[in-house]
Amino acid sequence: MIDIEELLKNEIPKHMLKRASVTLRAKLKPIRLLIEHRRVPEKGWDDDVIEFFLTLLSWMDTDKDPEGAQVGEREARVASQLVYNLAHGFCHGVGRSGNLTAPQPKAVGSSLAYLLTNRLALDMLQRCGAPNLNSTCVLPLATGMAIGLSVSVARSESKKHVVIYPRVDHKSPLKGMQLAGMNVKTVEPEVDGDAVRTSMKKVRKAIDAKTAAIVSTTTFFPPREPDDVKAIAKLAAEEGIFHIINNAYGVQSRQIMKLIQGAIDAGRVDLIIQSTDKNFLTPVGGTILASPSPRLIEKVSQAYAGRGSAAPIIQFLAALLSLGLDGYERLRNEQEINRQMLEEHVKRVADKHGERLLDVFNPIAVAMTLNQHEAKKVGHYMYTLRVTGPRVLEETDFGICCRRYHSPYITVNAAIGSTKEDIQSATSALEKALRHTRKYA
Amino acid sequence: MIDIEELLKNEIPKHMLKRASVTLRAKLKPIRLLIEHRRVPEKGWDDDVIEFFLTLLSWMDTDKDPEGAQVGEREARVASQLVYNLAHGFCHGVGRSGNLTAPQPKAVGSSLAYLLTNRLALDMLQRCGAPNLNSTCVLPLATGMAIGLSVSVARSESKKHVVIYPRVDHKSPLKGMQLAGMNVKTVEPEVDGDAVRTSMKKVRKAIDAKTAAIVSTTTFFPPREPDDVKAIAKLAAEEGIFHIINNAYGVQSRQIMKLIQGAIDAGRVDLIIQSTDKNFLTPVGGTILASPSPRLIEKVSQAYAGRGSAAPIIQFLAALLSLGLDGYERLRNEQEINRQMLEEHVKRVADKHGERLLDVFNPIAVAMTLNQHEAKKVGHYMYTLRVTGPRVLEETDFGICCRRYHSPYITVNAAIGSTKEDIQSATSALEKALRHTRKYA
Amino acid sequence: MIDIEELLKNEIPKHMLKRASVTLRAKLKPIRLLIEHRRVPEKGWDDDVIEFFLTLLSWMDTDKDPEGAQVGEREARVASQLVYNLAHGFCHGVGRSGNLTAPQPKAVGSSLAYLLTNRLALDMLQRCGAPNLNSTCVLPLATGMAIGLSVSVARSESKKHVVIYPRVDHKSPLKGMQLAGMNVKTVEPEVDGDAVRTSMKKVRKAIDAKTAAIVSTTTFFPPREPDDVKAIAKLAAEEGIFHIINNAYGVQSRQIMKLIQGAIDAGRVDLIIQSTDKNFLTPVGGTILASPSPRLIEKVSQAYAGRGSAAPIIQFLAALLSLGLDGYERLRNEQEINRQMLEEHVKRVADKHGERLLDVFNPIAVAMTLNQHEAKKVGHYMYTLRVTGPRVLEETDFGICCRRYHSPYITVNAAIGSTKEDIQSATSALEKALRHTRKYA
Amino acid sequence: MIDIEELLKNEIPKHMLKRASVTLRAKLKPIRLLIEHRRVPEKGWDDDVIEFFLTLLSWMDTDKDPEGAQVGEREARVASQLVYNLAHGFCHGVGRSGNLTAPQPKAVGSSLAYLLTNRLALDMLQRCGAPNLNSTCVLPLATGMAIGLSVSVARSESKKHVVIYPRVDHKSPLKGMQLAGMNVKTVEPEVDGDAVRTSMKKVRKAIDAKTAAIVSTTTFFPPREPDDVKAIAKLAAEEGIFHIINNAYGVQSRQIMKLIQGAIDAGRVDLIIQSTDKNFLTPVGGTILASPSPRLIEKVSQAYAGRGSAAPIIQFLAALLSLGLDGYERLRNEQEINRQMLEEHVKRVADKHGERLLDVFNPIAVAMTLNQHEAKKVGHYMYTLRVTGPRVLEETDFGICCRRYHSPYITVNAAIGSTKEDIQSATSALEKALRHTRKYA
Repeated sequence: MIDIEELLKNEIPKHMLKRASVTLRAKLKPIRLLIEHRRVPEKGWDDDVIEFFLTLLSWMDTDKDPEGAQVGEREARVASQLVYNLAHGFCHGVGRSGNLTAPQPKAVGSSLAYLLTNRLALDMLQRCGAPNLNSTCVLPLATGMAIGLSVSVARSESKKHVVIYPRVDHKSPLKGMQLAGMNVKTVEPEVDGDAVRTSMKKVRKAIDAKTAAIVSTTTFFPPREPDDVKAIAKLAAEEGIFHIINNAYGVQSRQIMKLIQGAIDAGRVDLIIQSTDKNFLTPVGGTILASPSPRLIEKVSQAYAGRGSAAPIIQFLAALLSLGLDGYERLRNEQEINRQMLEEHVKRVADKHGERLLDVFNPIAVAMTLNQHEAKKVGHYMYTLRVTGPRVLEETDFGICCRRYHSPYITVNAAIGSTKEDIQSATSALEKALRHTRKYA
Repeated sequence: MIDIEELLKNEIPKHMLKRASVTLRAKLKPIRLLIEHRRVPEKGWDDDVIEFFLTLLSWMDTDKDPEGAQVGEREARVASQLVYNLAHGFCHGVGRSGNLTAPQPKAVGSSLAYLLTNRLALDMLQRCGAPNLNSTCVLPLATGMAIGLSVSVARSESKKHVVIYPRVDHKSPLKGMQLAGMNVKTVEPEVDGDAVRTSMKKVRKAIDAKTAAIVSTTTFFPPREPDDVKAIAKLAAEEGIFHIINNAYGVQSRQIMKLIQGAIDAGRVDLIIQSTDKNFLTPVGGTILASPSPRLIEKVSQAYAGRGSAAPIIQFLAALLSLGLDGYERLRNEQEINRQMLEEHVKRVADKHGERLLDVFNPIAVAMTLNQHEAKKVGHYMYTLRVTGPRVLEETDFGICCRRYHSPYITVNAAIGSTKEDIQSATSALEKALRHTRKYA
Repeated sequence: MIDIEELLKNEIPKHMLKRASVTLRAKLKPIRLLIEHRRVPEKGWDDDVIEFFLTLLSWMDTDKDPEGAQVGEREARVASQLVYNLAHGFCHGVGRSGNLTAPQPKAVGSSLAYLLTNRLALDMLQRCGAPNLNSTCVLPLATGMAIGLSVSVARSESKKHVVIYPRVDHKSPLKGMQLAGMNVKTVEPEVDGDAVRTSMKKVRKAIDAKTAAIVSTTTFFPPREPDDVKAIAKLAAEEGIFHIINNAYGVQSRQIMKLIQGAIDAGRVDLIIQSTDKNFLTPVGGTILASPSPRLIEKVSQAYAGRGSAAPIIQFLAALLSLGLDGYERLRNEQEINRQMLEEHVKRVADKHGERLLDVFNPIAVAMTLNQHEAKKVGHYMYTLRVTGPRVLEETDFGICCRRYHSPYITVNAAIGSTKEDIQSATSALEKALRHTRKYA
Repeated sequence: MIDIEELLKNEIPKHMLKRASVTLRAKLKPIRLLIEHRRVPEKGWDDDVIEFFLTLLSWMDTDKDPEGAQVGEREARVASQLVYNLAHGFCHGVGRSGNLTAPQPKAVGSSLAYLLTNRLALDMLQRCGAPNLNSTCVLPLATGMAIGLSVSVARSESKKHVVIYPRVDHKSPLKGMQLAGMNVKTVEPEVDGDAVRTSMKKVRKAIDAKTAAIVSTTTFFPPREPDDVKAIAKLAAEEGIFHIINNAYGVQSRQIMKLIQGAIDAGRVDLIIQSTDKNFLTPVGGTILASPSPRLIEKVSQAYAGRGSAAPIIQFLAALLSLGLDGYERLRNEQEINRQMLEEHVKRVADKHGERLLDVFNPIAVAMTLNQHEAKKVGHYMYTLRVTGPRVLEETDFGICCRRYHSPYITVNAAIGSTKEDIQSATSALEKALRHTRKYA
């Protein structure tokens, strides 16, 4: 680039020059190291360094060329400086007609940013507990659409149209599968004690000659428990069908990542979907698609139709660089502590108000019965108290993931990025809510 | 909001107070008018006013609540200030699980921005030549994916799986249709003089009992001509099949918008797809889906799986406000002048170098034969001369949209936002390229 | 710095790599040229390039050192990111205790920015019409304070305390001289026809053994005419006294810069003061102090007490880079055209309403009598019509620069940066005002 | 302003509307409270709220009026958007010709920002320990220039030209006094044990009929101790002379603010000067001038010549709002803890290396002898180790504030804003330096 220190020569005393050079080099050092190692940095970067790096990258796209002539129908022209800023200069988007991850001749900087993002995403997932992954692609789509893309690959590879889906009451994945033209065969979970759990027996039974894939799920609200992805992986291997894991917000949890790792080792896992926002504190809009198989990632990348906004990619890249590995591990530690604290707080509230914690495995959220209270009112009350995120469900509501649950309940999360204060305020709001919503005897 | 002028009372002489108030109100006036009329402003806004407005909207989302407690798994938390800025504070994305355009309780500001964007998009398209449109939805997806969503609605409404597609050699639309699980029956265009043109006879013949939809195209590189969307609309009406128009960059052209208007009036047009970036100078990543039928827009919105990045929406909103109606009409006028100039320039170059203009209808681009030159080398030469956008094709290349074309050729665009200088540089580069690539006799 | 293109190797096809490199280098080229030539660029820079350059410079200051330990009482610590941004990272200010332009060991980047600014300022003034200048220093002070500093140097060099000041009714210069502990001997101008003009005879007469300096003025509102700086320069040379020219907004005018050049060639000119904001479209707060004598600039720099805000320096640097020489000449051309237009418009209005233009030399402003109208009301009326800048004065008001002027009058400016529209609106407002303020017969 | 919530009506469900409104109001609440109370907020504001507030204020200046016509010679025109941003839109500067704090008719927003800044500055100093202050003015000048302005008022009020200055080896204050045309009579401090201390006897003796003022000092490097400002205040009262206190970085220290309060109560204190950057973590360039007498603040404001950059004012305003009272008290607590820690660390190092702490009162810095080491080399060594701020002085260096000191020494600061890490790194670097610079026996 530019040897700006040259400017100093003869103008500034030599020892000062040297000192300035030391500082400038120290600021630029993280960029240099990233280029050399292409791994998530241990220590997160300052925002100004990230911005500088993004600027350099974006200045490699042809729309920045002051001497270029642009006579295509799509040349990343923008209506105003603000519009440019809203994209931080990445105006070409990502992807080409034929392949989402192919480099764009007009947008080498964007391509490079994307390539790097995909490398760092893989590095991050490997270091977060799944070293047996081999390829990732960050999609400019949220998880539901990403599931759609994934099953479409299963369809085109298998020439079959049925997906087996252990029931999770979340519309997006279902819509993604339907968008891809698949028929979804839902497998009803069973209630075992407090847990709502997928029956492996039923899953096995659901498979037939038309089955293209199973879509399993690791993260959902309690009392729905994570699927036994290891057992499903074995089954998928035996039956020769695709296995796609919706690991929506599982990267934050070491326990869940261990399940993923185990599943890959034990059987067949084709594609794993995770949200950028729920795991890595980015704005909504991106998915990290991962796989032990680079070929499959390539297939999905080729199935994507056209280009996409660069925003989810760049936001995720910035988030990774900002957090660094240390920052992310710190957040995961806090999450574990907060999850523990949440359980204790909710238990205390439950004990006091004649309710009880549901006894369910879930490393992120906690659920409590609402037998003695008017469930819906609890929810409204908390919304009014400016608590966002808790869900209140009654026995047959959409969301219970089974035909009928034994009690109404409320779930509260201690997800990554939540603070101690969030949890304290929420549980004290919960207590307030319970005090005002007790059923008459 | 805040009556900041109160602060002035007793502190500043009264006549100054009055003057300051006049200025402040004048700055805020565009926002006030937008709220009242919900139409694209005649005069474009200054960037600082747009930014201010976006800030106000984003401050209505719950993640901004300084006194809120956030205990959901997705709460629009962000890794750093930079990540926040990259989304201009719209961190919740757009959409809900069930419906892309449904308001999000946690993100009323984002919802409002989206709602407004959709209103303005409709207003804009109506004023750009298609007053018979009745609903629009700006999708956080580029056009190929949007075509996928559209045909998926055709499929679920018709329960049929075949799309008839008058051939256009562009991978994204095809991939979009395949992603949606459709079988695509391509109709081969015919070469008529210089024009590569869809044969209505062949289209009619292709329709059968399995046909869900026809996907027609208005904008592509010459010599491929726009489809006769009016005739196709009549045919679709007769046959009771969906008609989806890929109007990728047609909004910029008054002629093409007249075709759209005519098609809607004459027959059946269900959904019309247009790019935000190619028509409205936004970064890549958004589509304006339009329809005479609000019900169908609603259907597509419900078919979308989950949430999406708010970036393409906000970028498009900012672009519309920045341009204003006047600004857009000015750009369209320039485009027409530039298109005329391009034709004259290219004709002159062709005459001089033993080539000729292809005689094809196309309001945006121009094509010229390359019979006397080494076609591929012309392309490389221009790339080296920093000209982006021209395409060089030989007789059987992907891109010619027919089995075999009579000559190799080069296409150059005078698309909206191109400048006179772009066109002059490009044509003088073309001339230079021709001088160096003449075939030996 | 960083060889970011290295990252591309093996990742991106070679011809793309080359193209990206061409673009990146083209973006950085202006910086490279500036470093080599240290002259105002012909063509103005884009804002993003200026910002990038400022970032690089600011990253050379020790407060940016991620590995530094800061244990001084002043270490450019900032309260928040916003505070940092408000200074664009130049938090150390400019100057050292002993010398405003001495490099700061802790702030080499700031020092470098300052050094460069001073170089470019000299280059600009030379090319703007005064090639016989030899040194400049941009002060973080407006012109009144700069005059104070300048006369303080005259005092300390001459050991005398009296300044002769051909009367200009502007408080700042007077206050500046008083602040420096000088006694100001005002020389009353004479009214000659319409012009209010300094009498050289009176100036000569005012000089005595206590005289340290004359402060002359080139730019003020008509009917006060510019001082004959050439004659004063000759006189100062003869008498061996300092001559300081307040050339507040004279750089914009080729005619006035010619006067400056002539004065330097003909006699003694020690220091020349010009506003950064009035000449170069920066925010208020800076002065370009210029001199044929580097020694004197050094003296003023040493007389300045301590450090100062870097903001006026950086703003001026950014303005110069943004305008470029071409941009500035374009603005000066427009100013000349607008000045001509203003005269024509005001003349037409005057003719129509029984007033007349004052016949006075002034390359920036125009004045018109207000004999037939209620002068003060004209001023208020125009303020209400949102016209800022015109001044209305009656026969003995402060501002007329003489004991009594023959008529009330209004002045209007066509200063650099004003637009045609400004002048048209202002003159049409003037006409409206006159219609409503005519005196009764 | 704008009732943006109106837009929501009929578009968004009512309960969502209510929730959005709650969030928006919570974001704007700090602004509302500031307007009502005009006091430093207890809790610091988020940067985005400060920015929003600054935008609103700046939008009251006439240069923002989209319908205004600007025909003055100074209209806050700017060369580019970047130049505008560098001033955050406050392009008119602060001040008028006649009075720094007078409201500007063209710049009511800037005036208001300035007025508010002065109010908050007074509130802050009162709450920081000097409730007996009655007026403040934040000057767009660093402290040396502010001292110049202050003594110029003493001169014009007293008609005398001599300032008595208990010696402090800092060039800026001296230069400020000289700039104002004063003769400075320096009073040599005495060495008492380790302390370098002003002798009240000598000060008293220095006063004579020509004395306009005493300038005392509270903060400097040890072994120079703070002046006994109470005794000086009494003396000034007795003698009827001005007393100006240079309290450069004393606001951070509760002990020193107590001295100030005591001096005001006990005798005569006219003006007190404090740095914005050293006390409130702003970029260099501002001074808080304070006084028990509003009349005197007004006088200084009138003595200032013209306008000044708004940057130091806006930066200080932003810093105050960002810190809040709580934030500032937290920083002061940390400073006290760090100061204690620094002493302990340096003592340990001294003990180990045959040096000793100087026994001097100083609430911010610590000094240690360098008898066994090569003093100058210690300084260079630490600079190389990237430690900024320590000063090494030998027996007769400028900086010792007396004729000859008994030992060479090094001073290190634990100033406000320094971190624990700074102090640990610096003391460990000190140890390293000592190891390498021991004198040979």
